[in-house]
Amino acid sequence: MKIYNIALIGFGGVNRALTELIATKNSLWERDLGFRLNIVAVSDLYLGSVISPNGLDAKTLIEANFAKGGFGRLSGGSAEADNETIIKSAPVDIVVEATFTNPKDGEPAISHCRWALKSGKHVVTTNKGPVAIAAQELKALAKANNVHFEYEGSVMSGTPVLRMAEKTLSGAEIKGFEGILNGTSNFVLGRMENGLDFASAVAEAQALGFAEADPTADVEGLDVRLKVVILANELLGANLKPEEVSCEGISKLSPSDIDAAAKANSRWKLIGSAVRNADGTITGSVAPKQLPLEHPLAGVNGATNAVSLNTELLGSVTVTGPGAGRTETAYALLSDIVAIHNARSGSLAKDAA
Amino acid sequence: MKIYNIALIGFGGVNRALTELIATKNSLWERDLGFRLNIVAVSDLYLGSVISPNGLDAKTLIEANFAKGGFGRLSGGSAEADNETIIKSAPVDIVVEATFTNPKDGEPAISHCRWALKSGKHVVTTNKGPVAIAAQELKALAKANNVHFEYEGSVMSGTPVLRMAEKTLSGAEIKGFEGILNGTSNFVLGRMENGLDFASAVAEAQALGFAEADPTADVEGLDVRLKVVILANELLGANLKPEEVSCEGISKLSPSDIDAAAKANSRWKLIGSAVRNADGTITGSVAPKQLPLEHPLAGVNGATNAVSLNTELLGSVTVTGPGAGRTETAYALLSDIVAIHNARSGSLAKDAA
Repeated sequence: MKIYNIALIGFGGVNRALTELIATKNSLWERDLGFRLNIVAVSDLYLGSVISPNGLDAKTLIEANFAKGGFGRLSGGSAEADNETIIKSAPVDIVVEATFTNPKDGEPAISHCRWALKSGKHVVTTNKGPVAIAAQELKALAKANNVHFEYEGSVMSGTPVLRMAEKTLSGAEIKGFEGILNGTSNFVLGRMENGLDFASAVAEAQALGFAEADPTADVEGLDVRLKVVILANELLGANLKPEEVSCEGISKLSPSDIDAAAKANSRWKLIGSAVRNADGTITGSVAPKQLPLEHPLAGVNGATNAVSLNTELLGSVTVTGPGAGRTETAYALLSDIVAIHNARSGSLAKDAA
Repeated sequence: MKIYNIALIGFGGVNRALTELIATKNSLWERDLGFRLNIVAVSDLYLGSVISPNGLDAKTLIEANFAKGGFGRLSGGSAEADNETIIKSAPVDIVVEATFTNPKDGEPAISHCRWALKSGKHVVTTNKGPVAIAAQELKALAKANNVHFEYEGSVMSGTPVLRMAEKTLSGAEIKGFEGILNGTSNFVLGRMENGLDFASAVAEAQALGFAEADPTADVEGLDVRLKVVILANELLGANLKPEEVSCEGISKLSPSDIDAAAKANSRWKLIGSAVRNADGTITGSVAPKQLPLEHPLAGVNGATNAVSLNTELLGSVTVTGPGAGRTETAYALLSDIVAIHNARSGSLAKDAA
């Protein structure tokens, strides 16, 4: 049985949810997956950082109600989050990067990934920034250091779309995709179908905790754009940068647009898509589209996400599932660790029959 | 670069489609997947059998309009289909089993698989019979002979559901599933929603080639039952036999049932499902169910199939795609061969970053 020592970078909802899973599931994972996870270091801008070479108790980490700088009161702790030292020097196998997404330059998360990979540590992340902005560099670094860089959760939380394409659709020849990749905007569109105007629907999403105080990234398509870049680069072999993907959100849709769609047996959805052109180039876009009700994505409601992959040999294959959620996103990190474990330890033996 | 020598058992629509792909895609596969396929033997009840150790030309196999027993006129050919000799003695790496599904006892396909595995040959198959009826025995045989037994196409043609669960959802804790697993009955239900009675809808499906002369297996749920057994055994670790799964088809649904569902904002679907009970046992069932229109499976129309996996950590994840089709099913065979190739040759090296 294998124990992976891990460092949690960022201790917000996602890494807390992972810690909760570790507190309750380690024995199950040992039996079913062949490994346990041991939290050796945690770093968080608000709480500070801590390294405990023998491991921190997951249950205590969850239940202790740490105040600002609270990690400083732990043995091996500091009130400051010295991410660089933690990432470079903590004796861990895997760095779990779950800090905020910076859509501008991907920092500081890109640096976190870079430090970890250069130190010979695997990286698993749910952070869109490093994947959308620096995937090529980080994959090359991982390869050079013989470690993994895994990021299933950067697109649809735990719903597997990157690994589904890689592990189950090789040779199907993916030609393009279209997806509903932002739950907040999808929720807002649904409420507008129920009669609310855009501002009221956003206000309701905010009241319910689905939308942030500044909803721009969600409703103007910026979040979807990063996901389109990730999917296009991973699934279609593109090398797109975010600014190369056209981007229009849903804020200009009026109640009369919504009504007109309904009268035409259709429905507005914010669609992120990319397609391989005849000349081999890839074009990505984010825009509201009026889908006929029988379209496979028209029935994807609320905070659910979905991606339809258009393939040469198999036609359209769609995966639908949660696009957010603490535990759902923490599962993405687990699935990345499973992928690392299987690649490293006896997957040949296991796979043979 | 690797060449896999293969034997095609059954030369109906699916293996013909695979042969067409081989004729056109081998160079692409060599570049993108790392292997070529070389057809060394073919056997078919109607056409006879042929072994050609250096390989048969795929294009010729497709374009030659062989008459009954026609393989007998080829070098190394016989007008009789001696499957046992072909499978045991042809110098091949992989046996591609695509004969008819016998829902009663799985034969002769189970014997085909057994002979191949015992001869140290990998088996890929789209045949539900061996998987639903003899998977445990055949998996043990594969393991004992250090070869693979792969059967993605036994559930939803090339739409990956078995491999998706295995390769992308480890640790998500699948608790059950429900699916639309028969395109013919789904088509018939859709036509009944358009006003046809059951018999007329079936007649139309037959005229369009969606339903066979005897539609019993499709409309009475027998085909779905085999798929429920496969999914329950693979995804939930059950050990169900077909007769242990309750089975009710759609033939008793009347136009007034269809109307009543529509008035209740719902829709009848033939659902195959299984669930893990509190005591750890697994219950499978096939029955028409009235789904609310917002249910993720309610919008799956026509010949499309879908399975929703109910998971502990991730909630509901649904995969939707073709459930039939010559090329789509042939792709399942290719995806099985890709899985064998990756497990056998350097997936460790490839996966590391």
